[in-house]
Amino acid sequence: MATSAPTSSSTTTTTTSSSSSAGGGGAADPNSTNLRPPGSSYDAWCGVAHGCTRKLGMKICGFLQKNDSLEERSRIVSFLKERTASNLLSCDNMEGEARFRRTETDFSNLFARDLLPAKNGEEVTLQFLLEIVEILTSYVRKTFDRSTKVLDFHHPHQLLEGIEGFNLELSDQPESLEQILVDCRDTLKYGVRTGHPRFFNQLSTGLDIVGLAGEWLTSTANTNMFTYEIAPVFVLMEQLTLKKMREIIGWPNGEGDGIFSPGGAISNMYSVMVARYKFFPEVKTKGMAAAPRLILFTSEHSHYSIKKASAALGFGTENLILLSTDEKGRVIPADLEAKIIKAKQKGHVPLFVNATAGTTVYGAFDPINEIADICEKYNIWLHVDGAWGGGLLMSRKHKHKLDGVHRANSVTWNPHKMMGVPLQCSAIMVRERGLLQGCNSMCAGYLFQPDKQYDVTYDTGDKAIQCGRHVDIFKFWLMWKAKGTVGFEQHIDKCLDLSAYLYSKIKDREGFEMVFSGEPQHTNVCFWYIPPSIRGMPDGKERRERLHKVAPKIKALMMESGTTMVGYQPQGDKVNFFRMVISNPAATRSDIDFLIDEIERLGHEL
Amino acid sequence: MATSAPTSSSTTTTTTSSSSSAGGGGAADPNSTNLRPPGSSYDAWCGVAHGCTRKLGMKICGFLQKNDSLEERSRIVSFLKERTASNLLSCDNMEGEARFRRTETDFSNLFARDLLPAKNGEEVTLQFLLEIVEILTSYVRKTFDRSTKVLDFHHPHQLLEGIEGFNLELSDQPESLEQILVDCRDTLKYGVRTGHPRFFNQLSTGLDIVGLAGEWLTSTANTNMFTYEIAPVFVLMEQLTLKKMREIIGWPNGEGDGIFSPGGAISNMYSVMVARYKFFPEVKTKGMAAAPRLILFTSEHSHYSIKKASAALGFGTENLILLSTDEKGRVIPADLEAKIIKAKQKGHVPLFVNATAGTTVYGAFDPINEIADICEKYNIWLHVDGAWGGGLLMSRKHKHKLDGVHRANSVTWNPHKMMGVPLQCSAIMVRERGLLQGCNSMCAGYLFQPDKQYDVTYDTGDKAIQCGRHVDIFKFWLMWKAKGTVGFEQHIDKCLDLSAYLYSKIKDREGFEMVFSGEPQHTNVCFWYIPPSIRGMPDGKERRERLHKVAPKIKALMMESGTTMVGYQPQGDKVNFFRMVISNPAATRSDIDFLIDEIERLGHEL
Repeated sequence: MATSAPTSSSTTTTTTSSSSSAGGGGAADPNSTNLRPPGSSYDAWCGVAHGCTRKLGMKICGFLQKNDSLEERSRIVSFLKERTASNLLSCDNMEGEARFRRTETDFSNLFARDLLPAKNGEEVTLQFLLEIVEILTSYVRKTFDRSTKVLDFHHPHQLLEGIEGFNLELSDQPESLEQILVDCRDTLKYGVRTGHPRFFNQLSTGLDIVGLAGEWLTSTANTNMFTYEIAPVFVLMEQLTLKKMREIIGWPNGEGDGIFSPGGAISNMYSVMVARYKFFPEVKTKGMAAAPRLILFTSEHSHYSIKKASAALGFGTENLILLSTDEKGRVIPADLEAKIIKAKQKGHVPLFVNATAGTTVYGAFDPINEIADICEKYNIWLHVDGAWGGGLLMSRKHKHKLDGVHRANSVTWNPHKMMGVPLQCSAIMVRERGLLQGCNSMCAGYLFQPDKQYDVTYDTGDKAIQCGRHVDIFKFWLMWKAKGTVGFEQHIDKCLDLSAYLYSKIKDREGFEMVFSGEPQHTNVCFWYIPPSIRGMPDGKERRERLHKVAPKIKALMMESGTTMVGYQPQGDKVNFFRMVISNPAATRSDIDFLIDEIERLGHEL
Repeated sequence: MATSAPTSSSTTTTTTSSSSSAGGGGAADPNSTNLRPPGSSYDAWCGVAHGCTRKLGMKICGFLQKNDSLEERSRIVSFLKERTASNLLSCDNMEGEARFRRTETDFSNLFARDLLPAKNGEEVTLQFLLEIVEILTSYVRKTFDRSTKVLDFHHPHQLLEGIEGFNLELSDQPESLEQILVDCRDTLKYGVRTGHPRFFNQLSTGLDIVGLAGEWLTSTANTNMFTYEIAPVFVLMEQLTLKKMREIIGWPNGEGDGIFSPGGAISNMYSVMVARYKFFPEVKTKGMAAAPRLILFTSEHSHYSIKKASAALGFGTENLILLSTDEKGRVIPADLEAKIIKAKQKGHVPLFVNATAGTTVYGAFDPINEIADICEKYNIWLHVDGAWGGGLLMSRKHKHKLDGVHRANSVTWNPHKMMGVPLQCSAIMVRERGLLQGCNSMCAGYLFQPDKQYDVTYDTGDKAIQCGRHVDIFKFWLMWKAKGTVGFEQHIDKCLDLSAYLYSKIKDREGFEMVFSGEPQHTNVCFWYIPPSIRGMPDGKERRERLHKVAPKIKALMMESGTTMVGYQPQGDKVNFFRMVISNPAATRSDIDFLIDEIERLGHEL
């Protein structure tokens, strides 16, 4: 057995491999614990003390052992023995608790094979998991601490070479559990704190504690959504939650269908598949050859997943027509109608329109009602991609931005974005019941037996394009229980307030220029920072080229200093600009102020 | 604020809302902790004791407070004070530890809003997470305990009606954290213990502790695989692990490409997409209309995901040709060649052959080398679906069953099945580099900026059909570190030994009949149990009809008694039979014996 010494950059924080004693309730693994055999009276008490108190007990024992005053020793020991005898200090009635107590365990000679289901593996398992939890809770605490960095940036080659002993290579022989713990610490150390109050880089930010607890439970339950048989509670939670979401969308009595999928791109892909099945069900068996040339429509500002779906599902990206938008990034309905008419004139068949509720860059909400009028007129499937903006339906103040969403045939809504649910959590909902099943079912006999003892309509797996399906519902259900609908509403209102605050602070500030005028619809605030060296320059090619390099340069400096993270990108003919988005529940006005100052600090000399 | 009393079936196990004291390091939330102000000398010591030791400290305090002997009190207190002053008993140098100590916390008046990022939310957060971990570790312990049930079955309507107060409905107002903890206990109580040594129902079973730790860390890191920027360590781990897997497949130097996807069905879908892109890249832009009639081939025993892919991607299920198999469920190569020739004669274009390495029901391994010869002869893409059987590549003893896998153009391999990695963990690997990217990339400017400061070839997101992608790699990487390649090998060899044991026990046993003759190739053992009432019957319609009902009936009784779980299904013209599969690392020979006895016990009177 190759037992290499643990290597790490963070050995100073390890609490393992110190003292030798461990004990207490639960079945102790003889390989992992070295119970001191009770010899003298103080040794005997040490056993009790260790069993109950760990460090305090060890310290008392240490004192007893080192103390030369026989008199004091005997006095203390006799007191302690008395108490123990009278059950005052004993562990007898603390069984449940004793089973849940971190003790000093030397993991350097313990391996994965010593954990459950190993014989007597219970105590090692508990201690190992508690060490992990200590690492994780310490990470959680630091995540919310503004005095810590958002990230500690390293280039790929640096991490691959192995920084301070962090070795990513896999080997034939097992590593000790101590090394595994070190690896866990290092993994977090070199990662990015996406829950940090100053992490604004993505649409999914923040670290919801109840959601986190839900994920821990989900992975412990380690089951699969395809049948009620092995996920009874989760299957029902999914049904109830989807119904509630459909009620909020405004479909009568929350009727319809839906499923949680592995992300917004897959949810959007479902919508295209279901639309095709609704109008051309024969494509399922005969392929696209059975259908005329089908055309899909989406905004030029929409998410690239619609384009990915058009390629994957056999439509072809050329049959996805991009719609023009107004200055704020919203689809112009007249453009949609003109393009539908043009497609029909060519003999093509308009099948599907995607209206985005909250575009990725501008946060624009397409005018759903006007688009729905056109879809109804031409009998076209209307999908609303609310992956990013769907969360606003939880807010009485902001839901009007999705007016008309109840007219959609399908809706994507990602609770893992604006609602702060941990990744992954995305729902595709379909207004007409039965289509998801009809589109995707293949009736595999080995999975969906019709002769089960329970109501097999709860076996939802055949609706999916997946077979095994991860349990994405529990964390979301638990958060909803814990926050209530009002809690989500408060979170969303707060984020939108913060983005309004940011907008108001920079719209007239020297050195800042907005990408589009007027208040943003979502939390997306898009702007250029103009360093003093460029401010006086006339508009033109040279200025544009220089400005294009500013955001990447500031972002690089930001990541190297690790102080905050915000995204940038070009869009159409607009050179690189910052896209600030706020979904992070930990962010406050002071973090917005910090971001502005930091951009100025890092960009001032460019 | 509606603060309803927590309702639950399992209130007896709750340790909340008991005593009042909590304290110690970390920022204490004044809403949650009630520090006793130090008054008299023993009160002062109680503060220290509580800070360090919880229950032991409380008991000493209780003793001191109740003790009438002033002399003894002062004697003990003076001892304790002395030690405290000399830092022997104090918490001063235990800061890290004090931050990680479960204290008695009353969660009934605490809510999600009291957790981080709430001001002073640190201690409540820690205590809440520790309560969760107590629930989870208790569940883990019970999972491996054969004296507990595999499941506590209830029908959907029973759970929906709310058993013993477990209420699945969501509400507008928040629930207390105490209720959330109760909900977590109930969720586990009414679920299925997929890690129980007697859970054999699915290809994915077991609960690997290191993998579990990896999932807890993954959800705490809560990030996304699309860019190196926000998942530097995980992106590199994925690259290294996929390379290692490709080396094991036998591609020179582990060259090629790959990605982790949300399950084997999606991985198989990728393989079809990439094959189409390789031969007909114009389909990406022009759709299926740009290609001739393309034909896919797969075994009649293969997984239904190939059929789902043929429907979703626009081929049509009629253009998926099913191949005949031998008695053990293996593709007959001559049948493949005949069907290829027939398709070509019709003017169709054979595009893609799927060879299954470990079929879902029989566990059959198609003869890859012979199939590869045919694919090479006709220039057809060869995919190997090793979702279930890929794990055998880790075993020197059993890898020969996949001989020829290195000749495949793409391979699906699900570590979440035979290798015991928690759900979800599935890899699609492609021999030719660049195809995944070419097939799926859409170059979204807002995600994949070419002007980042690091080597952007590490931004792997554009290879995927997803946008956001869950971190599925870490748990697998961590397990590989912890077990080594040899650990996976031992696990696989052990499972196959167990299935050989099962086969040897029942092949000639009265009342059991094998579905196919000879030793199974994988851990799948397929058999009928024939109750005495049927044993004497002549083969024919009536016997078949009665036998068809036996497995569902036994399965229903099994679930109601909760003792074990194993799957059943019909296949082709074969009536319902049991499919035993062993991937559970906790299973032993005694569990196999138990299963046989249990089937006989439950089925004897049918």
